Amino acid sequence: MDLLRVSAQSNPKSLAGALAAVLRERGTAEMQAVGAGAVNQAVKAIAIARGFVAPNGIDLVVVPAFAEISIDGEERTAIRFSVGPR
Amino acid sequence: MDLLRVSAQSNPKSLAGALAAVLRERGTAEMQAVGAGAVNQAVKAIAIARGFVAPNGIDLVVVPAFAEISIDGEERTAIRFSVGPR
Repeated sequence: MDLLRVSAQSNPKSLAGALAAVLRERGTAEMQAVGAGAVNQAVKAIAIARGFVAPNGIDLVVVPAFAEISIDGEERTAIRFSVGPR
Repeated sequence: MDLLRVSAQSNPKSLAGALAAVLRERGTAEMQAVGAGAVNQAVKAIAIARGFVAPNGIDLVVVPAFAEISIDGEERTAIRFSVGPR
């Protein structure tokens, strides 16, 4: 499965473009963010991507969920964003 | 309109409880967050609230959007979360 990994340094507009591309191809997309900075960029990207896909008649909605992941052997809690049409 | 204002110090579980209460009463809810820390707490609250309302048959989804607001006379960009059933 394709997973868009978001960092605090991710550019929201570029991320929104990548998100829109995945959405147009597959209908839904998954993003993962660890930490407040990354979550913030992910949310901005989704807000921007809504405008990118709205002309295609897609009313984008998000479902956020917690995900336990391992980074360098350390347990971390990530936020997973399932993005798709309402 | 009731608007749940989220700060970086907001407790996600308490916020989720408040969100679930508004959702049960009105069907939809609006949250506003300024800054990465606040956005992160808002997203966590939504993920937790999904579990609170799922037993009521509600599949909660979110629409994030930018909002220009004024704080102490300064222009800031907030994130508005429209939360409601799919």
